[in-house]
Amino acid sequence: MTIFAIIGHLAATTGNFNLNDMPGGAGRMDILCRAVNTSLFLSHDLRREVTVYLVLLGGTDAPKTIMFSGEKVRSLNPDERSAGALIKKALEIPVGEEFRESTRGVYVRRGGLSRLLLAHAFAVLDEDGEDIGTATTIPEAFLLSDHLNFTPEELEMTCSYPKYSVGPKVLHADHTITVLLNVLDRRCGGQ
Amino acid sequence: MTIFAIIGHLAATTGNFNLNDMPGGAGRMDILCRAVNTSLFLSHDLRREVTVYLVLLGGTDAPKTIMFSGEKVRSLNPDERSAGALIKKALEIPVGEEFRESTRGVYVRRGGLSRLLLAHAFAVLDEDGEDIGTATTIPEAFLLSDHLNFTPEELEMTCSYPKYSVGPKVLHADHTITVLLNVLDRRCGGQ
Repeated sequence: MTIFAIIGHLAATTGNFNLNDMPGGAGRMDILCRAVNTSLFLSHDLRREVTVYLVLLGGTDAPKTIMFSGEKVRSLNPDERSAGALIKKALEIPVGEEFRESTRGVYVRRGGLSRLLLAHAFAVLDEDGEDIGTATTIPEAFLLSDHLNFTPEELEMTCSYPKYSVGPKVLHADHTITVLLNVLDRRCGGQ
Repeated sequence: MTIFAIIGHLAATTGNFNLNDMPGGAGRMDILCRAVNTSLFLSHDLRREVTVYLVLLGGTDAPKTIMFSGEKVRSLNPDERSAGALIKKALEIPVGEEFRESTRGVYVRRGGLSRLLLAHAFAVLDEDGEDIGTATTIPEAFLLSDHLNFTPEELEMTCSYPKYSVGPKVLHADHTITVLLNVLDRRCGGQ
């Protein structure tokens, strides 16, 4: 299993955002939609072994965490609006402390990063980290940020975690995920 | 300079499509928008050395070719609607045989693949091609298809071209571009 968690520092936590304005009113939700896309899609297939967490920290009902299960998700298409519509539905249902399924393979709960970090052995994507292309060990879980840097509090929570980069240029979160998965594909020989 | 050309076999060639329905009514224009994104965006920067061609073969006014210049483009944001809006504007203006600028750094002309292939030394992305990660030579221009396979006519036009793959799994066009650029970044050391 491979896990990606992306922090949406401004991302909406209520379902009343407009799918036509995800970069604006929804707090750069477009970034999280593209991260879902790059985490889960293959040509004419899905990456069933991948799970994606979106940590939503914006708006009046923060924090919430949404989980997309590559194994179970249905009704997901590659365009941003498709992932956005599933996120919107997840944010429209009553939510408690445990994950609740909003649509097939999509789940939502209250809580943010501190709780999520307890669940998996995360590594952090960092432009000064070890190049994943030549790393000897590959972690099972990767933590990325949206268009904003990790906050001082997030950096403190993750300061002891291994850090990886994806090459000499700094990429958007979704592009970073594509490169990470390509490295994993090559190590596993496509199996 | 690096060049990507993506064929949109069903993609609209008139500007009356709806930005809310790019996967449907606009003929999978969402794929081309994401290809523009992955070709041109770095974190907080643009890839100024990249040019993207979109070969649009759908609708009533086909074929048309749109060019995005990474060096000159402005007003482009990473979300699909942003690229879609610039494509829509390009398809709304009167168009002739030569490229005409529709918005800053975006150009449109009549004509399709056969003419474009004369302008650059293209290689073709093909799951059975040589792995670009270990290739000894890197082409300057890459030709990709949308969600549909190359047609027999397109295959015939490109049968003598070098062919490359990006690893053991078959990826969407936009993800393929991300991997190609990461390979180029590594070879150039990020310069």
